[in-house]
Amino acid sequence: MVPAARAAALTEPPIPKRALMRDPLLLTPGPATTDIAVKAAMLRDWGSWDDDFRAVTAEIRRRLRAILGPAGTDYECVPMQGSGSFVVEAMLGTLVPPDGKALVLMNGAYGKRITRTLQVMGRPPVVLDKGDYLPPTPAEVDTLLAADPAITHVVVVHCETSSGILNPVEAIARVVAGHGRRLLIDAMSSFGALDLDPARIPFDAVVASANKCLEGVPGFGWALVRRDVLEAAAGNAHSLSLDLADQWRHMEATGQWRFTPPTHVVVALRAALDAYEAEGGLPARGARYEANRAALVEAMAGIGIRPFLEPDVMSPIIVTFRCPDDPAFDFPAFYEAVKRRGFVLYPGKLTEAETFRVGCIGQVWPADMRAAVAAVAEACAEMGVSLP
Amino acid sequence: MVPAARAAALTEPPIPKRALMRDPLLLTPGPATTDIAVKAAMLRDWGSWDDDFRAVTAEIRRRLRAILGPAGTDYECVPMQGSGSFVVEAMLGTLVPPDGKALVLMNGAYGKRITRTLQVMGRPPVVLDKGDYLPPTPAEVDTLLAADPAITHVVVVHCETSSGILNPVEAIARVVAGHGRRLLIDAMSSFGALDLDPARIPFDAVVASANKCLEGVPGFGWALVRRDVLEAAAGNAHSLSLDLADQWRHMEATGQWRFTPPTHVVVALRAALDAYEAEGGLPARGARYEANRAALVEAMAGIGIRPFLEPDVMSPIIVTFRCPDDPAFDFPAFYEAVKRRGFVLYPGKLTEAETFRVGCIGQVWPADMRAAVAAVAEACAEMGVSLP
Ligand SMILES: Cc1ncc(COP(=O)(O)O)c(C=O)c1O
Ligand SMILES: Cc1ncc(COP(=O)(O)O)c(C=O)c1O
Repeated sequence: MVPAARAAALTEPPIPKRALMRDPLLLTPGPATTDIAVKAAMLRDWGSWDDDFRAVTAEIRRRLRAILGPAGTDYECVPMQGSGSFVVEAMLGTLVPPDGKALVLMNGAYGKRITRTLQVMGRPPVVLDKGDYLPPTPAEVDTLLAADPAITHVVVVHCETSSGILNPVEAIARVVAGHGRRLLIDAMSSFGALDLDPARIPFDAVVASANKCLEGVPGFGWALVRRDVLEAAAGNAHSLSLDLADQWRHMEATGQWRFTPPTHVVVALRAALDAYEAEGGLPARGARYEANRAALVEAMAGIGIRPFLEPDVMSPIIVTFRCPDDPAFDFPAFYEAVKRRGFVLYPGKLTEAETFRVGCIGQVWPADMRAAVAAVAEACAEMGVSLP
Repeated sequence: MVPAARAAALTEPPIPKRALMRDPLLLTPGPATTDIAVKAAMLRDWGSWDDDFRAVTAEIRRRLRAILGPAGTDYECVPMQGSGSFVVEAMLGTLVPPDGKALVLMNGAYGKRITRTLQVMGRPPVVLDKGDYLPPTPAEVDTLLAADPAITHVVVVHCETSSGILNPVEAIARVVAGHGRRLLIDAMSSFGALDLDPARIPFDAVVASANKCLEGVPGFGWALVRRDVLEAAAGNAHSLSLDLADQWRHMEATGQWRFTPPTHVVVALRAALDAYEAEGGLPARGARYEANRAALVEAMAGIGIRPFLEPDVMSPIIVTFRCPDDPAFDFPAFYEAVKRRGFVLYPGKLTEAETFRVGCIGQVWPADMRAAVAAVAEACAEMGVSLP
């Protein structure tokens, strides 16, 4: 991960040398930069059948559920192997029965993936398509639910990571509950940093994964599902591997995962939860990301680079910026120039405008965001891109 | 992982103290004991979108395919997130089309899981059920295929890990090819240690995972699939996450995994492949496991504990032993007593007889197997179990 240009710089004085040899900071939506204690937890091997590992599983299930707060006691935590998309698919396949009908609130790539997932499993949804950067409104959801009593479930993405937009889950949850329908939430990129208190936001299930705001490493995710809903869901799933109800039943009966768990990744999440709780849990984690976002947006404004979204819907997870409006700007070269300076950015994912993204999550602080913006300015200068 | 009894033993002299503090050796079918270099590879964070990680993905795909030998060039390596069962399901869902019909050769828990997987996805198979410890014979397969021309695919488990039996894949492959049908192999627990040369064993696909004979850590697996078969498989899958054809198409186009890869686990496999190749690849890895098995079976014979299977079908991966025939024998207590001495064994999985299992894979050598048997003898003595 050390480019040749950097290795050649080893004749520089000690402090810059150390900085240059460091892995770049990952300013992405995750996998992000994790604490060394999280990675060091992976230096041991665990028997997946052994009591010691069963205790780890029980512990992380308990601690993940606790993040929902006191109203979380009606929920069960069901971990699931694979990436976040696997857990989203497991939630949809297990909880939207074959004779159910889902309404997907879509405003980006992850809403699109939910739609495609339901189509592939032969349970095609109704879709409210808001394009790339507008939030679905509670009024729209109200109208759609009133018009179609066959809709059983509404699926919403909390933070749509493809733009960084924050969707109004609380207001939507009230509308959905008012119609007696069920809400499923993809909170992949917000869980642990943004509040999802079931006392205010009634939902049947929420999914997230290890390598986002909890700052673990990738390899599994989990669903938090109402116990009564899980009990009624046996036999719904289109897949054995992705059956949350079967995974839960087995875990309750044996303390074990049905199939081999990613043992090292699981113990890494335990270490990440230690760090999370030491930092002060959800309010503190959310506040640090807010501070990162504020520092980032302010420093970018200082060099004339503007965010794509309006401030009121901008999440503290990841920010989409408009690329400098100069023909000399080229994303691949820009990415490399910023990476050489120690920061890994993320490409844009919008069709409408040339954008790039900067993540605010992981082991990063406001000073890192300001340093990243300095690197952005240098990279632009190197490319001959003039900033306003 | 250090039980209280051990912690209390810290007043002992230095050498035994060190031995007691060490994590137990995992004599299981995996996750097994891995090299420290494999775990140490997980001490860095990688951007999943970054070129450096794309290069790692390309490299492991190439090196995994190379394990098939020169005839492997007709195959493509498609990695897949999740545990081994996820990759088995991905192979079945992607390659047995909705109008196909599979014959499952079943002689243990993993064959049963294949059957259940196909049932859940609505593609119920024909099953040849050989019970717990008999191999399917080529003649039986021949008869079934001759009788049912609708059968398109035969699914076989190479080493059925639930007993440790080695199924006759080569002879079966010839029969299947002779009938013009397709063979799918679950080689989860044998890949990398037992030969699967497509020049002698014609098959459409084989699946395996990172934490078995290649001695990586758990979190993903892969399918090696004939390129022409993969090209024809688009649109078959019952699941978006578990669609091998879609994963392949995307990887070829972008060099990236469709959904977030378990980055740390992937780089750990690269380190495991380094160790594998340094050891001498498949012949050397297979020979070490054979030596482990021989040492284990011989030492167990010395204390009167006999393997369950006949020698001609016994794999070098994991060995099932009959429990001592003494009412004082109790598996949970036995397991704990052996673990206290530094070895984690594995429970039996047979219905017919009381058994336990000992794995021969991972970073273990014949001396470890003999030490484990000494621990078994001590544990029996401690429990008051008399050995013949
Ligand atoms: C909101 C959201 N949903 C789903 C996913 C998919 O997760 P994964 O990439 O782990 O499959 C992501 C990943 O960034 C996400 O941000
Ligand atoms: C032959 C075989 N198939 C499938 C599996 C399932 O793999 P996993 O437990 O990783 O899901 C195993 C696991 O031991 C196995 O040995």
